[in-house]
Amino acid sequence: MAVALGLCRKLPLLLGPRHLHGSARRPGARVAVVLSGCGVYDGTEIHEASAILVHLSREGADVQIYAPDIPQMHVIDHNRGQTVEAESRNVLVESARIARGKISDLAQLSVQKHDAVIFPGGFGAAKNLSTFAVDGETCKVNREVERVLQDFHKAGKPIGLCCISPVLAAKVLPGTEVTVGHEEEQGGKWPYAGTAQAVKALGGKHSIKDVHEVHVDPKNRVVTTPAFMCETELYHIFDGIGAMVKSVLKLTGK
Amino acid sequence: MAVALGLCRKLPLLLGPRHLHGSARRPGARVAVVLSGCGVYDGTEIHEASAILVHLSREGADVQIYAPDIPQMHVIDHNRGQTVEAESRNVLVESARIARGKISDLAQLSVQKHDAVIFPGGFGAAKNLSTFAVDGETCKVNREVERVLQDFHKAGKPIGLCCISPVLAAKVLPGTEVTVGHEEEQGGKWPYAGTAQAVKALGGKHSIKDVHEVHVDPKNRVVTTPAFMCETELYHIFDGIGAMVKSVLKLTGK
Repeated sequence: MAVALGLCRKLPLLLGPRHLHGSARRPGARVAVVLSGCGVYDGTEIHEASAILVHLSREGADVQIYAPDIPQMHVIDHNRGQTVEAESRNVLVESARIARGKISDLAQLSVQKHDAVIFPGGFGAAKNLSTFAVDGETCKVNREVERVLQDFHKAGKPIGLCCISPVLAAKVLPGTEVTVGHEEEQGGKWPYAGTAQAVKALGGKHSIKDVHEVHVDPKNRVVTTPAFMCETELYHIFDGIGAMVKSVLKLTGK
Repeated sequence: MAVALGLCRKLPLLLGPRHLHGSARRPGARVAVVLSGCGVYDGTEIHEASAILVHLSREGADVQIYAPDIPQMHVIDHNRGQTVEAESRNVLVESARIARGKISDLAQLSVQKHDAVIFPGGFGAAKNLSTFAVDGETCKVNREVERVLQDFHKAGKPIGLCCISPVLAAKVLPGTEVTVGHEEEQGGKWPYAGTAQAVKALGGKHSIKDVHEVHVDPKNRVVTTPAFMCETELYHIFDGIGAMVKSVLKLTGK
């Protein structure tokens, strides 16, 4: 019983001063990670976010996690694949599940505090950070997301994106080169292949890449990798994200 | 617009025949992973689950994910660290966020279909899979969880657990040797160190291990690693879980 109560008493403490994964081993790059909820169909793709955080941790980065304090577009029951009409969830609150409580409102993200910013994918990027899932090439991007992308771009600080998130850069930073994988479905291997055309319609340039590859736009300092745009085994996605994280950190010069 | 609608049309398809991470490269071990929700404070620890799935994928395992179709003990707002009194969530439905929709009711888990079973941690193991967070050493274990642990144990098939989940094996399989890390807090490095005493009170034996280590109980074929019982960097936890997964697969002989 003492232990059980101990576990409960520890909870507020855990949500206080602790970090997701302790202090970095050495002063590394200061990286902001921007989430859009918790779950592939209405928020951040969980495995992409976790892979980003594992790789950043291994590279000694100093990570802070952010999400917008806004309602989700909707809630998807991930078991049945259906919208839950009666339910409403908040993007910041759900993102905190991935961040283990250590998260800040995206409105507080200042480019001065970070050397780079990374956006994992998941439908949250197309539903909560923008209206791409509904409006396609006429989509709007969340005001704070737009500000953050413009601020890092102007400061010449690298921006990493994966999966569907590159559409945010294509929309906000015209002429940016990104990859969302291949441009043909190839029998189901690239189920969202049509997104490449949307990238072009948004004003971006598209580079065909495989899941283990990254595309680096050196002029705009934007690094992208397909991740779950590809129907493949999880470790390929994990490794592709690792290459993206390393390319972003290299561009920081730290 | 065409692309946007395409994304929406793809959703039911994605929840259908596709697997979390495609087919295994070769016929590997058939591994069941049992989740307890989605989020460290009221469900599965997300990064532990993702690490388990990345390592199983790399080793070519054939993975199926399960969770009990029961209400969560409660819902924790992971941003504020507070219980949300008015809200109720289902363990299977929330676990489906980690499983990308590819999940089954734990009641359908048959030991004949699998070579091993793995339980990630998170408070869900102590709140939804058992009553350990409330009752400590007098806890009860969910009936289906108890059945699964007993079935795999009787069949001599390996059981992997991490973080707080080893208390389930200590309770259900008396005399089992497990690790939940160190037995002293060491200035905050092991905030749940008291759990080791609870393991002993439950009838288990405790082995002190560091975060990158595993404890293998060869007689009971139970493999455990501390994971987030340790306050450390995420990649250490990822690597410790990798060692646990490899030890479990080695015990399957596949």
